[in-house]
Amino acid sequence: MTSAIVLGGSRGIGKAISESLKSINCDVFAASKGDIDTSDLGIVKKFLDAHKETDILVLNTGGPKAKEFFDITEDDWNKYHNQLFLGFCLILQKIRINEGGYIFLISSSVIKEPNPKLIISSAYRAAFSEVFKILSKDYAKKNISCINIAPGPINTDRTKELIDNVEEFQKSLPMGRLGEPEEIGNFVKAIVENKIKYLSGVTINFDGANSNYIF
Amino acid sequence: MTSAIVLGGSRGIGKAISESLKSINCDVFAASKGDIDTSDLGIVKKFLDAHKETDILVLNTGGPKAKEFFDITEDDWNKYHNQLFLGFCLILQKIRINEGGYIFLISSSVIKEPNPKLIISSAYRAAFSEVFKILSKDYAKKNISCINIAPGPINTDRTKELIDNVEEFQKSLPMGRLGEPEEIGNFVKAIVENKIKYLSGVTINFDGANSNYIF
Amino acid sequence: MTSAIVLGGSRGIGKAISESLKSINCDVFAASKGDIDTSDLGIVKKFLDAHKETDILVLNTGGPKAKEFFDITEDDWNKYHNQLFLGFCLILQKIRINEGGYIFLISSSVIKEPNPKLIISSAYRAAFSEVFKILSKDYAKKNISCINIAPGPINTDRTKELIDNVEEFQKSLPMGRLGEPEEIGNFVKAIVENKIKYLSGVTINFDGANSNYIF
Amino acid sequence: MTSAIVLGGSRGIGKAISESLKSINCDVFAASKGDIDTSDLGIVKKFLDAHKETDILVLNTGGPKAKEFFDITEDDWNKYHNQLFLGFCLILQKIRINEGGYIFLISSSVIKEPNPKLIISSAYRAAFSEVFKILSKDYAKKNISCINIAPGPINTDRTKELIDNVEEFQKSLPMGRLGEPEEIGNFVKAIVENKIKYLSGVTINFDGANSNYIF
Repeated sequence: MTSAIVLGGSRGIGKAISESLKSINCDVFAASKGDIDTSDLGIVKKFLDAHKETDILVLNTGGPKAKEFFDITEDDWNKYHNQLFLGFCLILQKIRINEGGYIFLISSSVIKEPNPKLIISSAYRAAFSEVFKILSKDYAKKNISCINIAPGPINTDRTKELIDNVEEFQKSLPMGRLGEPEEIGNFVKAIVENKIKYLSGVTINFDGANSNYIF
Repeated sequence: MTSAIVLGGSRGIGKAISESLKSINCDVFAASKGDIDTSDLGIVKKFLDAHKETDILVLNTGGPKAKEFFDITEDDWNKYHNQLFLGFCLILQKIRINEGGYIFLISSSVIKEPNPKLIISSAYRAAFSEVFKILSKDYAKKNISCINIAPGPINTDRTKELIDNVEEFQKSLPMGRLGEPEEIGNFVKAIVENKIKYLSGVTINFDGANSNYIF
Repeated sequence: MTSAIVLGGSRGIGKAISESLKSINCDVFAASKGDIDTSDLGIVKKFLDAHKETDILVLNTGGPKAKEFFDITEDDWNKYHNQLFLGFCLILQKIRINEGGYIFLISSSVIKEPNPKLIISSAYRAAFSEVFKILSKDYAKKNISCINIAPGPINTDRTKELIDNVEEFQKSLPMGRLGEPEEIGNFVKAIVENKIKYLSGVTINFDGANSNYIF
Repeated sequence: MTSAIVLGGSRGIGKAISESLKSINCDVFAASKGDIDTSDLGIVKKFLDAHKETDILVLNTGGPKAKEFFDITEDDWNKYHNQLFLGFCLILQKIRINEGGYIFLISSSVIKEPNPKLIISSAYRAAFSEVFKILSKDYAKKNISCINIAPGPINTDRTKELIDNVEEFQKSLPMGRLGEPEEIGNFVKAIVENKIKYLSGVTINFDGANSNYIF
């Protein structure tokens, strides 16, 4: 049986991925913020004592509240450095991904088109994407695929917090709607179910044609 | 029943996509080079008289033989301009994609990391990727998803033509092997089967962690 | 004395480059559309009979009128394929750039963030950027630097044609103004004057912080 | 008289920039590591008490020794998070750049094509590039240009430390040589001297045609 650990697995995109992986009989540990809060490195280490290996790992965590550059404190930077970057690094340094496995990173489309209100997220998620890209070549030797999914506006609680008028905002989007978490869940499931391995070292915008950069 | 037209559908990646779509009961027209050769615009127009609409369209065609810049003739440029770019433009100007449909473009990883031996392919496939990106925003209004798949080294006849010593070449790749056409076929199938629509306007490297650019 | 050929050198950005190179005593041939129209390959060939070598080459040409995808005719595609792509290829296949020289390509910021109204320009300028990138590695062996300058909104006649209300448009720009052709002219001059050679194989957005893509 | 602060201004690229700015009569404070070590945030704050404003700011610092992912300690991550990212953020939050000024960031070509041995540098320099891109739009309102220069292999002490056999390495480069710090120094000088302002929000690879990504 295939095992999976999904961080941030109790809500939003993480929950959708957990449920779609369960639907194909994966043994999923859907970690809530109570199980592991990557902004607290002590907790991360404890988590790693209890979870030493997995077939599938989904690195996923919410971002900070919207805050513009000049309002960000040193504590903010350090907290989200842990949450969005360093916690994930410690996990990958220690956890064993079994041969033939998968690592999915749920980042954000702001890594490619950064957003002033999400500057912390833009910065640290980009930083971790660099690490993830480099490691994808190592993991490839063990037939482990590393897939960076960069969602645009998805229908989650977080989006509703960030956007004032969701109705109006949706009209401005190419598809006239937010994406559904289940679409990302199904996408992850489909890759695993079909044993697609050659998709690796890639960043996939998942944003309903919303981005403007050519690639 | 979902209809699909797959250009270059009789061999390699196109064939794998055709077969995977058939496996989920799509009504697939797997067009061979005898049915439509996009380098001949007259034939393209005839094809469009016979094929006026579809739910799924896969824009796919082989590239030219490897040729370095100073050896390329004006005729070469014009031929592949038609085959890799203009033929596809004429098709999209005329064919009707039904609401909720999909357009898959099979381009190449050389659009992002261009290759001197594949300079024609790098140039015209990049050009068409620009067109495709722009159009993705229009198609989004009709809930049509546009997905640009950019394969790296895949196990096809063409790769065997281009690479002298495939055995040696494979050792140089992160996964130690070429990708299989079926992996791309299954990827396309999985998107359609799971009705994943919010993946659009995106270029997806499919290269086994071989590329070096961060995104 | 350093020789320079500047295509489209009688107006706009090309003129500004011509004049700034003259100011540092380059022997500049500022080619007008009467001297060479790259959409006419016969004229391109004649031009190459008369101009066999240069120290500095500036590949520059205006783009088409704004036209959306479904209005573009086969003749349009073919004309601008010549003007924006094939004419430049024929020039580089034939002209000799002297050792230690420079090739500047004036493309457009739409190659990275394509524009529906400038779809032809987005496509063919991107295509030629691929060729130029590949060739930069060859030219490097002869200490020739290849620099792709991708202007955003610049204060030229062309911009005034494309934009309805220039006053309003300027307010929407980060710097509150269009760029001046002389800024690009001075930039080119400064590189040549200071013998900066290691800047090569690069695409430089010149757009007053207007683009949104991270790199 | 134009004032300039150049971090890491006592050696390598920073020194070359300092000297080229002095040559055009800028009043340059070439800060050595003794003046400000951005890995020590207390020192950064003291520095900011003494240096409250400038016309030109050059954000420049060496990177860590080469270290692969699994050897990097938590202390390493935190130290270089400060040195390459957070120290620069604190500076920009506090220092006043005078209207019409310039901020140059000296990052590295590894932000676009990350390097396993320089994984820390790839990550944190990319993170800061996100911040810098976002801020470029704000600074534009005060006519301040933000230019991110991403050097490839440059002839500095650091490169000699990182590369085992520099002679051999140079042969592998397109230009057959490392770049000279003075080329970057002259580039910065030329932009300032010619009052080129519309070049902003841009990342400029400075690598002698060595990178492979198209843009």
